[in-house]
Amino acid sequence: MTQATDQTLISIAVLKAKAGQREALRESLLALIEPTRSEPGCLDYVLFELRDEPGTFYMREAFTSAAALEVHKATPHFQAFAAKAGSLLAEPLRLIFLDRVSS
Amino acid sequence: MTQATDQTLISIAVLKAKAGQREALRESLLALIEPTRSEPGCLDYVLFELRDEPGTFYMREAFTSAAALEVHKATPHFQAFAAKAGSLLAEPLRLIFLDRVSS
Repeated sequence: MTQATDQTLISIAVLKAKAGQREALRESLLALIEPTRSEPGCLDYVLFELRDEPGTFYMREAFTSAAALEVHKATPHFQAFAAKAGSLLAEPLRLIFLDRVSS
Repeated sequence: MTQATDQTLISIAVLKAKAGQREALRESLLALIEPTRSEPGCLDYVLFELRDEPGTFYMREAFTSAAALEVHKATPHFQAFAAKAGSLLAEPLRLIFLDRVSS
């Protein structure tokens, strides 16, 4: 199994649906799960929705390195999502980078 | 091992340090890790700091149920933290509840 290292890039992607696009965004994000997890540089990729803000999604992400995240962004599945993002998202995708503090 | 179920309560606690209190907040949050993980209702409890906002921490949390979260809040270790929170935090602790969408 691929292990986390000091190079590991952990983030939360924040994705907020335009009015009326909640289901379409949800489906488009779910379609990313399996192909992204199949990328050799992907350590973690899990979709959540904010309980108190339906239509706002968090994708919990970890990649082996910054380079692996760039590879992810260049994949056909992510590019297909990016091409639709303008019609689905109320605001640009925001990536919150996290440093793990505890074990 | 305790398993996640439909009752599982997943959240991110957002904790923002007052000016000058970053290290003190970090230590106080780290002190919660082991006793909280020892609670029977705790499934996940991991501390992160925002890379682009030093002094802002995310605690990634999962408890077996809403009741287990209430038990957590009543523990001596959490109460000790709560007693210091006013001097450490720039704004009240915020809990973002999440529903898992993908596997």
